[in-house]
Amino acid sequence: MQGLMMDRPLLISSIAEHAETFHPESEIVSVTADNPRHRYTYKACFSRAKQLANALSALGLQQGDRLATLAWNDYRHMEAYYGISGAGYVCHTINPRLFPEQLIYIINHAEDRVLFVDPMFLPLIEKIQSEVSSLEHIVVMCGPESLPENTLGAVDYETFIGAHSAEYTWPDFDERSAAALCYTSGTTGNPKGVLYSHRSTVLHAITGLMPDVLNISRADAILPVVPLFHVNAWGIPYCAPMVGAKLVMPGPKMGDGEALYELLDSEAVSLALGVPTVWLALLDYTARNNLKLDKLQRTVVGGAAVPASMVEQFRDDHDVVLHQGWGMTEMSPLGTLNKLLPKHESLSDEEKVKIQIKAGRGIYGVEMKIVDDDGNEQPRDGVAYGALMVRGPWICSDYYKLEGSAGTHVDGWFHTGDVATIDPDGFMAITDRTKDVIKSGGEWISSIDLENTAVGHPAVAEAAVIGVAHPKWTERPLLIVVVKEGEQTNKDEILAYLDGKIAKWWTPDDVVFVDELPHTATGKIKKTTLREQFADYQLPA
Amino acid sequence: MQGLMMDRPLLISSIAEHAETFHPESEIVSVTADNPRHRYTYKACFSRAKQLANALSALGLQQGDRLATLAWNDYRHMEAYYGISGAGYVCHTINPRLFPEQLIYIINHAEDRVLFVDPMFLPLIEKIQSEVSSLEHIVVMCGPESLPENTLGAVDYETFIGAHSAEYTWPDFDERSAAALCYTSGTTGNPKGVLYSHRSTVLHAITGLMPDVLNISRADAILPVVPLFHVNAWGIPYCAPMVGAKLVMPGPKMGDGEALYELLDSEAVSLALGVPTVWLALLDYTARNNLKLDKLQRTVVGGAAVPASMVEQFRDDHDVVLHQGWGMTEMSPLGTLNKLLPKHESLSDEEKVKIQIKAGRGIYGVEMKIVDDDGNEQPRDGVAYGALMVRGPWICSDYYKLEGSAGTHVDGWFHTGDVATIDPDGFMAITDRTKDVIKSGGEWISSIDLENTAVGHPAVAEAAVIGVAHPKWTERPLLIVVVKEGEQTNKDEILAYLDGKIAKWWTPDDVVFVDELPHTATGKIKKTTLREQFADYQLPA
Repeated sequence: MQGLMMDRPLLISSIAEHAETFHPESEIVSVTADNPRHRYTYKACFSRAKQLANALSALGLQQGDRLATLAWNDYRHMEAYYGISGAGYVCHTINPRLFPEQLIYIINHAEDRVLFVDPMFLPLIEKIQSEVSSLEHIVVMCGPESLPENTLGAVDYETFIGAHSAEYTWPDFDERSAAALCYTSGTTGNPKGVLYSHRSTVLHAITGLMPDVLNISRADAILPVVPLFHVNAWGIPYCAPMVGAKLVMPGPKMGDGEALYELLDSEAVSLALGVPTVWLALLDYTARNNLKLDKLQRTVVGGAAVPASMVEQFRDDHDVVLHQGWGMTEMSPLGTLNKLLPKHESLSDEEKVKIQIKAGRGIYGVEMKIVDDDGNEQPRDGVAYGALMVRGPWICSDYYKLEGSAGTHVDGWFHTGDVATIDPDGFMAITDRTKDVIKSGGEWISSIDLENTAVGHPAVAEAAVIGVAHPKWTERPLLIVVVKEGEQTNKDEILAYLDGKIAKWWTPDDVVFVDELPHTATGKIKKTTLREQFADYQLPA
Repeated sequence: MQGLMMDRPLLISSIAEHAETFHPESEIVSVTADNPRHRYTYKACFSRAKQLANALSALGLQQGDRLATLAWNDYRHMEAYYGISGAGYVCHTINPRLFPEQLIYIINHAEDRVLFVDPMFLPLIEKIQSEVSSLEHIVVMCGPESLPENTLGAVDYETFIGAHSAEYTWPDFDERSAAALCYTSGTTGNPKGVLYSHRSTVLHAITGLMPDVLNISRADAILPVVPLFHVNAWGIPYCAPMVGAKLVMPGPKMGDGEALYELLDSEAVSLALGVPTVWLALLDYTARNNLKLDKLQRTVVGGAAVPASMVEQFRDDHDVVLHQGWGMTEMSPLGTLNKLLPKHESLSDEEKVKIQIKAGRGIYGVEMKIVDDDGNEQPRDGVAYGALMVRGPWICSDYYKLEGSAGTHVDGWFHTGDVATIDPDGFMAITDRTKDVIKSGGEWISSIDLENTAVGHPAVAEAAVIGVAHPKWTERPLLIVVVKEGEQTNKDEILAYLDGKIAKWWTPDDVVFVDELPHTATGKIKKTTLREQFADYQLPA
């Protein structure tokens, strides 16, 4: 028997309509290439999004067509989010930092028909234009006065929408329709497209607002330093208009400590979100200039593990609470958020930080389990670990045009590729990537834990641990060390240092010393290269 | 084109699973008839809900069958919520304060097959048992030692679930399946059943958690004084386990100021929810005993208009913020919640209260408009008013077994039966019931506004305003007054008092004096009776 409730679809346009009606005066403040401080209201934003929807209708596009953006965080990009998805097209956000070959691959794979591009990225498109055949229209995110000369027949955004009416009725359609597309950067193989639906986007946004998640209210001013091209800026462009929070968009000034400080301070930002490197730049700037982040209350940090020192610096220097979050492009992205429990209030600062550097607790809507190689669920005791699997209405069921071939899904669950522990309170901590974990005698050894312990030795500059084939135990850990300039050490000294800090059976079977470790473009250790390099390595008997 | 996101249904059982996994230690504290303070954990609660689901499976029920509850707020009722809905049946909560003929009507109309009943209501069922034919099983909410002698073949709850395993896999099914049923009390005609779905219930609960709505987090301890039989206690039984908040269930001690104070204080309740009369009892008790509500932070009040004095008393005596909420059984119920905006911070207390006694601002998910008699939308200027219509995924599309005949829906919108204004900030205020508003020359006059102004006159004990037929203006207002004992006044004096306080054209065409006004059982003025009484009344020329 069905309930007798209205069958209203969860559409992204419903957020625009709500904001126009209930939060017309809330502000969006943007830094753009040609305006250091553009400000207007939600009412203006969604009125212009309707003009854009009318302009797109005039192009004769089909529902579900992909329209790409290559742009920083500002108000025009926000309008594109709503104008494109609200009208029934798919907003495909592209990372401008990609290599040209990846850009070409992604645009061709998505078959983007329209591209919205910041003026500064126009030369990038001119260079690849002969190799991207699907693009029919290029709209440059500026007014006519700032449109660069170009060979693309590009039109400026203001001219593109200017002639069109702001009268537009957002169409109703199935909430499971595609709304947005984001490709994972992918360390191996081609980028893979995650295709979000209206339903997944709206559910993710409502849940993100919860007090124990991003805790967003009308009283907030939010600075998403995480880019709009990176998993929908963690959902902020949808969360903020749901409650009428003020939005502060940093434009190209993402990694500039001074510019960030100035925005945070002058716009009275209460919540800022970004990756650890961004905050390093900010904290460095404030420390060097003896500045305090007076108005900022909290920051949500994700995308990479947060060092304890960053939690402490925000706390001690700025009275700002750092909440670690964890998620993936495939998860829209919110999976966990780290907020201490009432019972933690009485802990010392040091004990609190130990909890705060975990990935955090699962959010309602995200089911989570850790399993061993045979798929058996492992206990949630904070000690046992296993491959982390997730399930929920905003987690991808597959990749765009790769249906069934990615091998990332088992029995309806998504393999995150991470190895994790979950403690009895539900705090999850990532211990390794699945492909890096060392499988020894049916048990798993965390390469990350071993590396983090090894770099504690005063003579060690960098350390990597990989599994090496072993006749009896399948694999055993090999510790590869770069010694600090001017320091000296040896295998016995290193192993003695590890003794007592790790489980006895985790002790590396050997320690080798190298001049440097191979790194990826983003600075991570390239373990695939190390594994190739040490493929035939013979461990001592 | 569809998105590629997991198709996980929004089921009530997902809340139980989340709470068991992430909030196993959170507490539920209950007052029951036989235990002044029962306490256990969410883990225990949902484990027992699974035992109940197994016990129900053994009865051979069909998916969608209605199972009724007639009980106060306590842990067993909470288990019934999840055991019944989670297993795919419909949890039909019945108000024990109904007259026996209404009880009979409702049970027969719903065709309830099982009834979960508090021991104290067993005699009520014995009296009507010959007239309710559908009931096959009666389960009394107690252990074997407290089971009253009865003629119903009833079994106690502990025996009913005791033999069954806590191993149970919640079934997966369409999220639009019926989950719960609640009949509106209905001032005219038979009660009408609102049939909630899993989808509507889950969406309503997630949205209710928002910081600008109920603002519920793990750190909260929540006392729902609103009954579980009254629109699912405003969603609290679903909201709390989503975040692991502590639940405090008052059992039969709903209107007892002393008992409420003791619970609020000893269980460190941070959020309490209920109707105004409940808080009158509490505030009276604390005032008489010079007690302060130290731990309570906020209270959400709905179900009837909140007097300004209640906002002030909570604020001044207890440092408690009163948030008015507005909703209906047909709306699950949350429609608006009153929380001041950042720009109101600088207002005086007096000015704040004027805003705080409005119904509040619309919540994301609830579309709202006011229309005139021809269905034309009226401006949101805080002055214009019209019939309030709502639409959204947790608003009923019809009534159970009355499909299409209730006449409450127009073009997919639900007629609330209220007349309201909406101001530019989105604050809605109810000015009248649609059937009570006076239609004069195509314009509407609020009977409630006139009455509230008239009772400000020192000699007026009570006042009612109804529309009386008028040859030129269709209707004109007639003011009916009860004079305070020992006081004297007359028509001219009353009209002179109103002058300047109301729009000139609102001035009643006549004032009549009566000894008393007719009232409903809940104390509201019975305007239908007044309209019959004054049907042929001739207004002065």
